[in-house]
Amino acid sequence: MNGNEQKLMTRMAENAERTERALAEYFDEKDNDLQVILDAQTYSLMAGGKRIRPFLVNEICHVLGGAEESSMPFACAVEMIHTYSLIHDDLPCMDDDDLRRGKPTNHKVFGYANALLAGDALLTRAFGVAASAPCADPTCRAEAVRILSEKAGDHGMIGGQIIDLHGETEKLEFETLLRLHRLKTGALIECSALLGALAAGYLPDTKEAKAATAYASKIGLAFQVIDDILDAVGSEEELGKSVGSDASNHKTTFLSYFSLEDAKAYAKRLTEEAVAELSEFKNAEVLVALAYYLLNRTH
Amino acid sequence: MNGNEQKLMTRMAENAERTERALAEYFDEKDNDLQVILDAQTYSLMAGGKRIRPFLVNEICHVLGGAEESSMPFACAVEMIHTYSLIHDDLPCMDDDDLRRGKPTNHKVFGYANALLAGDALLTRAFGVAASAPCADPTCRAEAVRILSEKAGDHGMIGGQIIDLHGETEKLEFETLLRLHRLKTGALIECSALLGALAAGYLPDTKEAKAATAYASKIGLAFQVIDDILDAVGSEEELGKSVGSDASNHKTTFLSYFSLEDAKAYAKRLTEEAVAELSEFKNAEVLVALAYYLLNRTH
Repeated sequence: MNGNEQKLMTRMAENAERTERALAEYFDEKDNDLQVILDAQTYSLMAGGKRIRPFLVNEICHVLGGAEESSMPFACAVEMIHTYSLIHDDLPCMDDDDLRRGKPTNHKVFGYANALLAGDALLTRAFGVAASAPCADPTCRAEAVRILSEKAGDHGMIGGQIIDLHGETEKLEFETLLRLHRLKTGALIECSALLGALAAGYLPDTKEAKAATAYASKIGLAFQVIDDILDAVGSEEELGKSVGSDASNHKTTFLSYFSLEDAKAYAKRLTEEAVAELSEFKNAEVLVALAYYLLNRTH
Repeated sequence: MNGNEQKLMTRMAENAERTERALAEYFDEKDNDLQVILDAQTYSLMAGGKRIRPFLVNEICHVLGGAEESSMPFACAVEMIHTYSLIHDDLPCMDDDDLRRGKPTNHKVFGYANALLAGDALLTRAFGVAASAPCADPTCRAEAVRILSEKAGDHGMIGGQIIDLHGETEKLEFETLLRLHRLKTGALIECSALLGALAAGYLPDTKEAKAATAYASKIGLAFQVIDDILDAVGSEEELGKSVGSDASNHKTTFLSYFSLEDAKAYAKRLTEEAVAELSEFKNAEVLVALAYYLLNRTH
């Protein structure tokens, strides 16, 4: 591990701790009538994870000269939206998953109705958190809400989920596969960059915000390509069949269009392009390390 | 029908038309990949109804001297949130309803996954609509989002749904029954009043906004009392059994605590108190007529 990678690991771990403290403060109360919906939200919100999205919000704000007290509410809002999407994704009418990060999924613990409402409540709260961010001016808060709504909505994350549902029954064109991932995971990662820039005082049409967003968009797509590679290699090792052999019978992935080697080269190229977007930023070495960390991960 | 009631009917019908036009404009596009999620949202959003919440937003703004171009985006945001709540309420894991206003429910037409996501998308879009309202200043837009989040969230409408779920298995205390309705339906009606006042330039802590909210809160509660009465009388006529005879075996309602006569008197008193809140407003005759219209309805 080189120096910047070490610095990344330390900063990510410290950020995760501060983010979890900030998230917990939004739920620091007791209310008998409402306890189950508060508990259901915190169960999933506090279930761990690397907190990559809040890290991006806070780190991009930091690199652009902003203070964490400005970016943290936006970081929390993004993490609430990410968490709601996981709760709803796990529901029986979607992926019907029993486990998430080794723990029972929300509806397995709290029941379907409470899980549905816990997701709704986290999504609803996220916008209130962004709109009330104490250290941002009103223009910045309204803009943050607009960005969150766009990137999480039917032309953002939800749009990606919809294309993903189609993809379960038909093979997707390459352009549609790209759009799926740009929306389903990319949109919220771009959103994190936009909100980080915004917290530092850069509106979405500034060159700083545009560069940060392009960086985020490219690492988001590289992340997905690597995911497909790891899934395929995992299947190959587990099932003893060659990668891509049955790709045509399954969900469309990048390996439906690329060989394993070409997919790796594509992810590497995206990562290099992402890093190039940071060329005008000072002190971006941690963001550079993040891009390579995501590229080189093995699980 | 007296003059003010006639005026109310005309204004409500005209407002419903303008609101539906405004709502439709947010979905005026074609996108092949995303068509199903756009169609699922508009299916429920355009399914009719009296549009009482948007009417409240616009009428209160009007009475307080504001322009409809300021209040209409907030009116649309409230209606989107109301509609999302109906879609999710109808899902199998909640009320499992097949019909809504005589039409198949969203999940019956579009399937569970699309219905879930259509609700999520409407909720997400509502905040973007409020945050981008073209004729409101940024402080007003951020405040509108904060209000929507609070009133629709786990201490507002969702909180009411949670108490309602408890109420299916245990008898609720009278105070808890009151809280249920103040949250489940009352919160979004109060929200409508707050947003109408806000669009006219009155922040929530002004006496104008407080009076409008108190009016809304009281007509919302009266509405629910009347609902319980109409349900009970309907059951009596249909089933030939006396009102309240089996109340203890069923969901807690106002008739678990009041006789039919006392419940009617309670609704009347709430309506009179609501109307009294309007005493300082000029040109509030339509809002007065609305309160009595809701009290005297027979279905």
